[in-house]
Amino acid sequence: MAGKKVLIVYAHQEPKSLNGSLKAIAVEELSKQGCNVVVSDLYEMQFEPRTTRKDIVGNLYNPKEFNYGVEAWEAWKNGHLSEDLIEEQKKVKEANLLIFQFPLYWFSMPAIMKGWMDRVFVQGFAHDFPKCYDSGLLKNKLALLSFTTGGDKGMYSDGGVSGDIRYLLWPMQHGMLHFCGFSILAPQICFAPEYAAQEERRQMLTSWQQRLKTIWEEEPINCTPEWYYK
Amino acid sequence: MAGKKVLIVYAHQEPKSLNGSLKAIAVEELSKQGCNVVVSDLYEMQFEPRTTRKDIVGNLYNPKEFNYGVEAWEAWKNGHLSEDLIEEQKKVKEANLLIFQFPLYWFSMPAIMKGWMDRVFVQGFAHDFPKCYDSGLLKNKLALLSFTTGGDKGMYSDGGVSGDIRYLLWPMQHGMLHFCGFSILAPQICFAPEYAAQEERRQMLTSWQQRLKTIWEEEPINCTPEWYYK
Repeated sequence: MAGKKVLIVYAHQEPKSLNGSLKAIAVEELSKQGCNVVVSDLYEMQFEPRTTRKDIVGNLYNPKEFNYGVEAWEAWKNGHLSEDLIEEQKKVKEANLLIFQFPLYWFSMPAIMKGWMDRVFVQGFAHDFPKCYDSGLLKNKLALLSFTTGGDKGMYSDGGVSGDIRYLLWPMQHGMLHFCGFSILAPQICFAPEYAAQEERRQMLTSWQQRLKTIWEEEPINCTPEWYYK
Repeated sequence: MAGKKVLIVYAHQEPKSLNGSLKAIAVEELSKQGCNVVVSDLYEMQFEPRTTRKDIVGNLYNPKEFNYGVEAWEAWKNGHLSEDLIEEQKKVKEANLLIFQFPLYWFSMPAIMKGWMDRVFVQGFAHDFPKCYDSGLLKNKLALLSFTTGGDKGMYSDGGVSGDIRYLLWPMQHGMLHFCGFSILAPQICFAPEYAAQEERRQMLTSWQQRLKTIWEEEPINCTPEWYYK
């Protein structure tokens, strides 16, 4: 939709991968709609995933005992967060929709993207107890997980060895994104593309492109435990 | 138990933290029992969490399209993984019990520890389809998550805003550890130590120490979806 702003947080090492193509299609399709699309290409940026003292510029609030959460919160209040974090926070603040594009690693996102969550969603910026969940500071924004899996759909079903795929969505969709106030759009999941025929892979790209055409009309999911576990 | 080998994978920036104390107590108590205890202090080691081309020494298997999983697998087979990974894999191979000590970040482990999972548990070393879950390559080893939370126990209960704590254990205990064959000991959870009185914090340390005295007699949990969701 013209004028909407989208941030794609993208974590794959290889532009020729299916993740790379899914990201490229989102940029193309959303730009065509007149959206303003920004990509944080984490591997390309060599994004730092570790939460360390380096994230705070200048003196610490409590130099005697380093508490990352407290230090980042204080640094946010005083404008002393490191430049790369301020840059990412600006992109988040501007965006109406965040798309996370990644290959599932160990039932979760790759460490480089987990580090983006750990470092960017600082207290004061993204949440500030009791301002969390429905009153999280990033409310009125949408978030969507778009990812590929190694295992096939049967493995990630009720009764499959890896359990219902929704079980692993909980920490990411509820614990990270909903906690900060985001409304969650249904995930876009490409199961086992490495074992798929070329035609099936093409179909995965086409489905994503088709979905994006009407993405702004979608209703967020009802982010309660019932959605995940019943 | 004398002669047993334990690897503690530890992720906290501050030795004076409760996580630091929990780690120190485990080293002390298990050493006293005659166990051989090794610690991977991830922040101290400046452990690299990102999965990149640098993990493969020398030529790539497919230089035209980088696929981390495939490259790491091939590198493992040919002894071409980077030195820091080989070092961690040796520690894992030796260990009877792995303890992961960390503060919960976003319903999961900090990125630096997620990166340890992403990089160390390489196909061929930790799993090799269909050798996964009960037949994972690290079977006959025990794993235990020991962590602190920001939210209190009420938030992480059935009906609490953050849901039953077991929901967030699933990806870590089942998707990462059980997948590689580990038997899982019940997690050790310290709820909201930052809001606890000094006496309560002391109690958290004592409980852990007491539990460790009989840790080798514990039965693993029954790692099925029912344990997590029913």
